[in-house]
Amino acid sequence: MTFRAAVITLYPDMFPGPLGVSLAGRAREEGKWSLEAIQLRDFAADKHRTVDDTPAGGGAGMVLRADVLARAIDHARAVMGDSKPIPVLAMTPRGRPLTQARVRELAQGPGVIVVCGRFEGFDERIFAAREVEEVSIGDIVLSGGEPAALMLLDACIRLLPGVMGAPSSGTEESFENGLLEYPHYTRPAEWEGRTIPEVLRSGDHAKIAAWRKLQSEVDTRLRRPDLWERHEGARVQSASGARREKRDVDQ
Amino acid sequence: MTFRAAVITLYPDMFPGPLGVSLAGRAREEGKWSLEAIQLRDFAADKHRTVDDTPAGGGAGMVLRADVLARAIDHARAVMGDSKPIPVLAMTPRGRPLTQARVRELAQGPGVIVVCGRFEGFDERIFAAREVEEVSIGDIVLSGGEPAALMLLDACIRLLPGVMGAPSSGTEESFENGLLEYPHYTRPAEWEGRTIPEVLRSGDHAKIAAWRKLQSEVDTRLRRPDLWERHEGARVQSASGARREKRDVDQ
Repeated sequence: MTFRAAVITLYPDMFPGPLGVSLAGRAREEGKWSLEAIQLRDFAADKHRTVDDTPAGGGAGMVLRADVLARAIDHARAVMGDSKPIPVLAMTPRGRPLTQARVRELAQGPGVIVVCGRFEGFDERIFAAREVEEVSIGDIVLSGGEPAALMLLDACIRLLPGVMGAPSSGTEESFENGLLEYPHYTRPAEWEGRTIPEVLRSGDHAKIAAWRKLQSEVDTRLRRPDLWERHEGARVQSASGARREKRDVDQ
Repeated sequence: MTFRAAVITLYPDMFPGPLGVSLAGRAREEGKWSLEAIQLRDFAADKHRTVDDTPAGGGAGMVLRADVLARAIDHARAVMGDSKPIPVLAMTPRGRPLTQARVRELAQGPGVIVVCGRFEGFDERIFAAREVEEVSIGDIVLSGGEPAALMLLDACIRLLPGVMGAPSSGTEESFENGLLEYPHYTRPAEWEGRTIPEVLRSGDHAKIAAWRKLQSEVDTRLRRPDLWERHEGARVQSASGARREKRDVDQ
């Protein structure tokens, strides 16, 4: 099955860009995913191919028109016609942060339509009118949604069946268990006076696993207190859930 | 002054990619920023140009060698020789989340060296040995650091002097004041039965500003409780700081 991606953009030339190379490029040649870059301007209604207008209420910049966006999204949905509805995501700093769990869901589905903003953003009405999911990648502001769309697609593509080499590579990673991954080391064993932690050279698999788990927890607490809190919250909840279940069984 | 970017990567062909088009592409032609894509493999020590090795302690995947990375970083620092030290950032999900404040600092500096990981990641020793800042963009896992590097550079470039059209475009945006931006609307005033909020058509600038501030706060609370908490924390702190200062003056 081919994972189908369509990107609605004012700069179709930016695609496939980095996704034409390496892992994603090879997977596309093998038909594991397909890409259509759709020029938003093709859906303008006037001869100047206008896609934007000044913000209602005043202010700097220009806003992408809802009617033009809607025609482009309707077109993308029509050409991608599938038995399952294809999710439409708009890349915007106002969106909810994209998570690895959502990426995994998307990768298991039929594909994705990504709408890239430019200028001040989208006319807000498009989101409810076309069931568009607003997603954000990182708390930084870009010149447009295109670099974020490339990131989103890269994250999906690597999870498609047969794209990554070793099947284990997808599971023991940052975020997959709600924690940052543990640190890595490789040869040379000593480099510029810096050595590899002794335990990793012990050959004791249980000790190594325990050390990695601890490092993963320590680094998450230090670097990402937000992730750590969510992780601890989920742990406490699932533990009390387990207690509840046990009690139910005992009764 | 030219903002100088160097990217250390196994896929130099991915650059400039989307940064060769539109705003960033034009700015590069005008000499507002420069880009050097450095092939990591050129710094391998053997005839097979090996850059990675198996993880110490076992496990799937391959780890980028610290000695090879160090030679590439030392080379980049040497060719970019500047009176000010040029920051080196590695794109890794283990890093601290990149913020708009950090992007602004970087854009005001001489440039940036970005190191892109592939495979399982970097030998941990490189970070302390070469003062490398580990940064993450979003809680998703990529096939490599390249798409994240493109995002980081795009975010920096748009802030360089003379790159964005209206100088006001940089200040009234998501994250710049710790909140999400308010929603936008533009013509047509009515579309598929959906209208633009009345207040935005009132012409009353004070009312419009108040409405936008409220929307910005409401959306941040709903969509990004994490941002909202930080924002409220900072507000409370700066208010008590102001009180302390006043007391100091009063004494």
